Amino acid sequence: MTETKKTTIVLFSGDYDKAMAAYIIANGAAAYDHEVTIFHTFWGLNALRKDEDVLLPKKKSFIEKMFGKMMPRGSNHMGLSKMNFAGMGPKMIKDVIKKHNAVPLPQLIEMAQEQDVKLVACTMTMDLLGLQQEELLDGIEYAGVAAYLGDAQDGNVNLFI
Amino acid sequence: MTETKKTTIVLFSGDYDKAMAAYIIANGAAAYDHEVTIFHTFWGLNALRKDEDVLLPKKKSFIEKMFGKMMPRGSNHMGLSKMNFAGMGPKMIKDVIKKHNAVPLPQLIEMAQEQDVKLVACTMTMDLLGLQQEELLDGIEYAGVAAYLGDAQDGNVNLFI
Amino acid sequence: MTETKKTTIVLFSGDYDKAMAAYIIANGAAAYDHEVTIFHTFWGLNALRKDEDVLLPKKKSFIEKMFGKMMPRGSNHMGLSKMNFAGMGPKMIKDVIKKHNAVPLPQLIEMAQEQDVKLVACTMTMDLLGLQQEELLDGIEYAGVAAYLGDAQDGNVNLFI
Repeated sequence: MTETKKTTIVLFSGDYDKAMAAYIIANGAAAYDHEVTIFHTFWGLNALRKDEDVLLPKKKSFIEKMFGKMMPRGSNHMGLSKMNFAGMGPKMIKDVIKKHNAVPLPQLIEMAQEQDVKLVACTMTMDLLGLQQEELLDGIEYAGVAAYLGDAQDGNVNLFI
Repeated sequence: MTETKKTTIVLFSGDYDKAMAAYIIANGAAAYDHEVTIFHTFWGLNALRKDEDVLLPKKKSFIEKMFGKMMPRGSNHMGLSKMNFAGMGPKMIKDVIKKHNAVPLPQLIEMAQEQDVKLVACTMTMDLLGLQQEELLDGIEYAGVAAYLGDAQDGNVNLFI
Repeated sequence: MTETKKTTIVLFSGDYDKAMAAYIIANGAAAYDHEVTIFHTFWGLNALRKDEDVLLPKKKSFIEKMFGKMMPRGSNHMGLSKMNFAGMGPKMIKDVIKKHNAVPLPQLIEMAQEQDVKLVACTMTMDLLGLQQEELLDGIEYAGVAAYLGDAQDGNVNLFI
């Protein structure tokens, strides 16, 4: 009997390139039959934001509105960790991704959901940044650091990205 | 008989938000009865600096004084990895932390010490940056990469932050 | 019988200081008789670039030439993750490394190769950034995420840097 391997990634970063790396590893691990979890915390939550305007049940405070405006709305709007060049960098990366028939980030996230990668939003950070469940992708889970540690302590591959 | 689980974090980053993530995971793991070590190296050492002036037994060289001046003195003075906005970002984060009764970084570090999280300062980096033991918090340990690896090789959760 | 321990590092970052941390841990682990792999992806590939001009068998596209020009050519030309100060930071770090008889990054990479640390270049990113094997150091391996996961899933220390 072989035990199922586990891969658990904390996605802290809100950079397009780092999130790409996280999702490429996650999709690879899922293809290898690992049980895979990505725990999105701090700026990593932005990868899970919806692109469109949503009707919010709870009114946002001034500072929550500011965070909402300043942070990228969804994976397609994230910048690069290096050579961002006021937004030209992401365009260059997206161009070469297209040219090489590689998979851009929004599709990597869809693939992960199709492969049953567990996408978790950190509730503590949602609270701090004023993000509400309605603003995030459907079909994700909500949990805190205790749930992350429960997964990670039996993990074979644990990464902080 | 269940074995004690181990969590070992390398804190390389000197960013307020990343250090918060490191200490939240560390405190969570300690609450879960893990044996927890945070190995502070490079800019992560700044989280361990004392806020006040200290009398140093060894005179600093010019370059060591410059590093000392340029690097944040203690966790409360660290910037953000994203949206730092010349210091406004950390203020915003500290405001929302207060508003949501979350725990700011200096208190997270105190909690870690109370929970017997082992806080280690990397002696090689201290040497490079010219930091002396008198400038760092009391009750921490001093070690090099060999000690880190000794802990990490039996770790269940190993992260580089 | 004791099993050989394994250390597996994803080097995503193209920063001098982060690459130093990766190679110090890798060399330490190799000295501890771990089987060590560094998987260089995205900007981490720059640590493996040769310093000199090379005759390339395949002509580069315009965008590939741009990436080639903008990215640092080899570990000695990489910037710092913090306090880069338009290139003054790396000089300061190199000065203190020299003064303290510590080992600069290019020599850390040589040491790793002598200690049989497996240096791997991520073929997917090479393709995206238009890097060719002729531009990278001799004696390294080429692989994708599947090979990385094959190593990492049995790893004792897995880090993403």
